[in-house]
Amino acid sequence: MATLKVPACVPSVQEDVEQLHKAFEGWGANEDMIISILAHRDAAHRNAIREVYYECYGEGLLKVLEKELHSDFERAVLLWTLEPCERDAYLANEATKKWTSSNQVLMEIACTRSPQQLILVREAYHDRFKRSIEEDVAYHTKGDCRKLLVPLVSTYRYPGIEADLMLAKAEAKILHKKIGSAEFCDDEVIRIITTRSKAQVNATLNMYRNEYGHELVKDLEGRSDDDFVSLLIGTIECLACPEKYFEKVLRNGIHKLGTDEWALTRVITTRAEIDLAIIKDEYLRRNSVMLEYAIAKETSGHFGKMLLALLGHEEAKKN
Amino acid sequence: MATLKVPACVPSVQEDVEQLHKAFEGWGANEDMIISILAHRDAAHRNAIREVYYECYGEGLLKVLEKELHSDFERAVLLWTLEPCERDAYLANEATKKWTSSNQVLMEIACTRSPQQLILVREAYHDRFKRSIEEDVAYHTKGDCRKLLVPLVSTYRYPGIEADLMLAKAEAKILHKKIGSAEFCDDEVIRIITTRSKAQVNATLNMYRNEYGHELVKDLEGRSDDDFVSLLIGTIECLACPEKYFEKVLRNGIHKLGTDEWALTRVITTRAEIDLAIIKDEYLRRNSVMLEYAIAKETSGHFGKMLLALLGHEEAKKN
Repeated sequence: MATLKVPACVPSVQEDVEQLHKAFEGWGANEDMIISILAHRDAAHRNAIREVYYECYGEGLLKVLEKELHSDFERAVLLWTLEPCERDAYLANEATKKWTSSNQVLMEIACTRSPQQLILVREAYHDRFKRSIEEDVAYHTKGDCRKLLVPLVSTYRYPGIEADLMLAKAEAKILHKKIGSAEFCDDEVIRIITTRSKAQVNATLNMYRNEYGHELVKDLEGRSDDDFVSLLIGTIECLACPEKYFEKVLRNGIHKLGTDEWALTRVITTRAEIDLAIIKDEYLRRNSVMLEYAIAKETSGHFGKMLLALLGHEEAKKN
Repeated sequence: MATLKVPACVPSVQEDVEQLHKAFEGWGANEDMIISILAHRDAAHRNAIREVYYECYGEGLLKVLEKELHSDFERAVLLWTLEPCERDAYLANEATKKWTSSNQVLMEIACTRSPQQLILVREAYHDRFKRSIEEDVAYHTKGDCRKLLVPLVSTYRYPGIEADLMLAKAEAKILHKKIGSAEFCDDEVIRIITTRSKAQVNATLNMYRNEYGHELVKDLEGRSDDDFVSLLIGTIECLACPEKYFEKVLRNGIHKLGTDEWALTRVITTRAEIDLAIIKDEYLRRNSVMLEYAIAKETSGHFGKMLLALLGHEEAKKN
């Protein structure tokens, strides 16, 4: 369930392009107009706007946005304006770079997108960076994290909902044994987590709970504070229940000393057209406060307005 | 360069379907007619024949072929009739099964198909087997071979022809060091071989030869007779020069005590529409005998006729 709000009667692409061009005229951009247009158009329409903008003015919309906008607001608008697969490719590439490296972002993209979407991301990565995503991930990571991340970004999981319960039981047993002996990065653990379909992984996690009386993630928590174990926990959370995982990312991003704007921007721009409404429900249940209000409190200016618009709640600021 | 010979004026799909249906009438099939039709139609046309056949007679063409034909001829016609991506999915699945397992076939498919073709194979694998190819490969292989094969079948290499020569030099050095110390299955060796684009791998192999005075493959040969090293050698051969690799497979298949019909069938059906003409040239250069004559000598009956038809040399038998 998306939160994106598109008006009942969407203006033509040409009209939007002209309005955007006007928004860039004179001293400083008209940020409100930019939000009122871009934050209320779906991916296909935004893409058409980019094409027509280029045809009309001979300059890429993204280039203009980059020039006219600044800081967190710029990042939010740029990420949002990109096509979903381009955006993921951009985020993944950033996550392999020295100063912005993030195993979590790589894992999040690999585990929460559909298998088909992940193929589109890998194509977009080729087109933009002239390398493959697994090539960059393998080159820029090392040790246990590499052993998990490379197959995660390379896998093309079977998307069906069938699950083999006998297999789930056998593999739950393997996982229980390996976790029990603290062999968290064992080849078999990696194999099960990185190659099985999401439905099969979930069946295995359910079987684990049935057979051993508690969740697999609970058996991992507190066992080690190394990066690999946190990454493995995140992986399992993303595969089992992405909404809960994203709720946690938002919660940590909001409660962090000095809000984590990048995390908020990433989750909101990547989920607004997918399942942000469910993530909002999760947030309310877990924090007893609406996500919109939490975001309104922690952010300011046009950056806050942009996020709230994508959350489908433009007015939260005023309440 | 393909060897497939399609007549200048191809009969309509409907005509072909009716002729094939006639070929199945009465006692025993008319094998010559089946060859004269199927072995002279391209993949799109064969696919159309399958569709129309099913519409007309309510039975799949593959099912009928399976029922009417036998042994090596049956296998050759069936494999040929499949769409290329279906055929590769079928061969890959067979290669993960106990009695027909073959690391070489898996490696060959992963390394000699284009990255885009490999994605189609992986989709076809989902559709047919309700699992992913990497899932089955990871489950059915182990040890060092698994460590190489799983990334090989999972990778989506960048298809561009650009190569970074500085990087090639650095990675040639890594490979030289690891091979020198017999760390053939080192993480860095696997990373370079499984994630870099084919153009980049080739640049690295060239740099290796320039810097160290001999081919990387020569440094591997004779170092160990274990399965992993042979698989690694095959991988490098497939990435560097698939035609030479396929020539070798055919040569071994022909010279083997008791011809290896499966190898001949696999190479000829999978390459006839791609580069079999180049493989034929390679074969002649290396063996001083034409591939058609070698095949005619080693095979018999309709099986031989089918392979020769796909080689574009129906008459070799008679000469």
